[in-house]
Amino acid sequence: MISVCDAKNILNKYSFNKVNYVDIYDSYGKVLAEDITSNMDIPFFSKSDKDGYAVVDLNLKHYTLVDEVLAGDMRDLKIEKGECIHVATGAKVPEGANYVIPIEYVEKSNNEIRLIGDIEETNIIKIGDDIKKNDKVLKKGTVITERNIGIIASLGIEKIKVYETPKVGIISTGNELNSIKDVNSKTIFSIVKKSNCQPIFIGNAKDDIDDLKSKINKALEHCDVIITSGGVSAGKKDYLPRVVSSIGEIIFHKVKMRPGMPMLFGEINKKPIFCMPGNVVSCLTCSYVFLLPFLKKLAHVPFSKKVVRAHLSEDIPSEYGMTYFRPVKLKDGMAYPTFKGSNLITSIAYADGLIEIKEDETLKNKNDVVDVWVFE
Amino acid sequence: MISVCDAKNILNKYSFNKVNYVDIYDSYGKVLAEDITSNMDIPFFSKSDKDGYAVVDLNLKHYTLVDEVLAGDMRDLKIEKGECIHVATGAKVPEGANYVIPIEYVEKSNNEIRLIGDIEETNIIKIGDDIKKNDKVLKKGTVITERNIGIIASLGIEKIKVYETPKVGIISTGNELNSIKDVNSKTIFSIVKKSNCQPIFIGNAKDDIDDLKSKINKALEHCDVIITSGGVSAGKKDYLPRVVSSIGEIIFHKVKMRPGMPMLFGEINKKPIFCMPGNVVSCLTCSYVFLLPFLKKLAHVPFSKKVVRAHLSEDIPSEYGMTYFRPVKLKDGMAYPTFKGSNLITSIAYADGLIEIKEDETLKNKNDVVDVWVFE
Repeated sequence: MISVCDAKNILNKYSFNKVNYVDIYDSYGKVLAEDITSNMDIPFFSKSDKDGYAVVDLNLKHYTLVDEVLAGDMRDLKIEKGECIHVATGAKVPEGANYVIPIEYVEKSNNEIRLIGDIEETNIIKIGDDIKKNDKVLKKGTVITERNIGIIASLGIEKIKVYETPKVGIISTGNELNSIKDVNSKTIFSIVKKSNCQPIFIGNAKDDIDDLKSKINKALEHCDVIITSGGVSAGKKDYLPRVVSSIGEIIFHKVKMRPGMPMLFGEINKKPIFCMPGNVVSCLTCSYVFLLPFLKKLAHVPFSKKVVRAHLSEDIPSEYGMTYFRPVKLKDGMAYPTFKGSNLITSIAYADGLIEIKEDETLKNKNDVVDVWVFE
Repeated sequence: MISVCDAKNILNKYSFNKVNYVDIYDSYGKVLAEDITSNMDIPFFSKSDKDGYAVVDLNLKHYTLVDEVLAGDMRDLKIEKGECIHVATGAKVPEGANYVIPIEYVEKSNNEIRLIGDIEETNIIKIGDDIKKNDKVLKKGTVITERNIGIIASLGIEKIKVYETPKVGIISTGNELNSIKDVNSKTIFSIVKKSNCQPIFIGNAKDDIDDLKSKINKALEHCDVIITSGGVSAGKKDYLPRVVSSIGEIIFHKVKMRPGMPMLFGEINKKPIFCMPGNVVSCLTCSYVFLLPFLKKLAHVPFSKKVVRAHLSEDIPSEYGMTYFRPVKLKDGMAYPTFKGSNLITSIAYADGLIEIKEDETLKNKNDVVDVWVFE
């Protein structure tokens, strides 16, 4: 048996560094696999921040209108003292112009413009004001958001080098899944999606060594990580420890925790395999504690816990040497335990979070202040 | 011009109630469009919570082993006093059995079992202990998570009635998009994904009334909501207000806010159309303030803001009668404004959140405590 902490440390050594190129429209939420450095100044021409009149200086007050530039008009115009050129917002400012007088600051008659009022800003966005050429604008490892995607778009990058997320093959096991509905494969499928990875349901394997090997081999062909549920305890038909040790290596089996004790983690052909317990609450608890942070790390997505403090509504006894995880419902600053049994899905389905009672504790008392890891 | 608050109230009246059926494996993150009531007791047979021996009572201490039941074996067995039947975890408990003695509490020789120690629990999960027939187990409007999906799976439901998320057609506008990279359509595309809706990029429309109408008509064919960017200010080529009023109805145009003032909202064939300002920071600000909550409401997904308090690092002047939104970077409890201009993407690309300076304020002072709406 291994402690929760040691198990986490082992899992924390894994990583996944395949990369691929995605179209910018498919890149939201993906993680950059390289630094992005700007290959140009942005804007790459001086442009007007206002709808107005470009002029050389403000002293003259009177100007003759000689031309008009709309956004997108890339002509190389020049302007002389005494002249003005109408420039739209975003339009290229003519060479020689030092100010744009906004339209609300002029009186116009025919082709003559008169400045009224005081202009405090140039209203010109200069070359490189937004991004300078050769700036490192986004670092490797950055998650692409609705904000920074604009930088990538500004630079005209259409294909982005991002980390590929692992394909995760899911196998449920057990002859009884003909009569009992298969809960765990759907739960694990959802956890894989939550981790930004790619779930693939491989199928249900019977309690039969050959069928288990065959399903695992099928998963190995297509997937980077394998997750099974069931068949990992000490029962007669719990063949998974035997199967994993025969075609791969068990890294740890049995964790000092309740629920979730029977969990097994190993490697087959250098690919990680998680064998989750068959009891639905045990499977989900191990998914939160081990699988979610593991998969998020492989997907290069940040993992963080939202923790709130609450007063416990009742005593929760635990066992020295075992870490206990107990689902709770939160209300008005109180945490109400919802655990009824490790095979009853309603023990956790309606809960708001998990509390952890460490190995060296034997009890949390009613009214104790506890940290609740809130499900998000 | 309309206030930010009035604009929000108008948008808040919209909803979208199309439903469809999805496979349970595709249901993670979707929203239930009907209550789910259990059609059976779960478990629907008494089952053992432990690997052990089913017996009628605990008084005898000695029992004769007469049979064995593994998980999935659905035979209708009966048990008499003095007999015991080996039951695996999750296996069906024979009729007449009141206790399961865990294997670690027995001594076994041949077919004789002797109880050692005291058993405190029955170790039997009774019919309906998890879910009772006719219980309303999940309410309409519930988001499907990795926890409650187990309830749906337990009931054997494979196709789930969920709210369909709207298809959102995105059109960028402006002749200048040949030379300036199109940032806004990627930003809006990301915001639509963040809202759980389905983005469809329709294309770029030239500054031409016929092309705008044609692109909008194409979007109307396929989409439930239309979003354009650019062409909505007071410039010569800003045709969108004219286009929307000619083929539909403008609900509001111009909002008392900076950046984002030129925003237009209307309806064409009863479908909502947002015409976002062309300046990239204005477009993104309006996306956060209006689009994100609007689309999440249409997708029946809860919208909440994460707000943290911070001290402002410098004065921010604003204008009485206008709501100001200013991006800030957070560090050590301080909020550092990052706004450089409404057309400079780096004004917001690296920011952590937005502060709002209300219409009736004209300044936030250095060191003022401000609420920062943190981007998530």
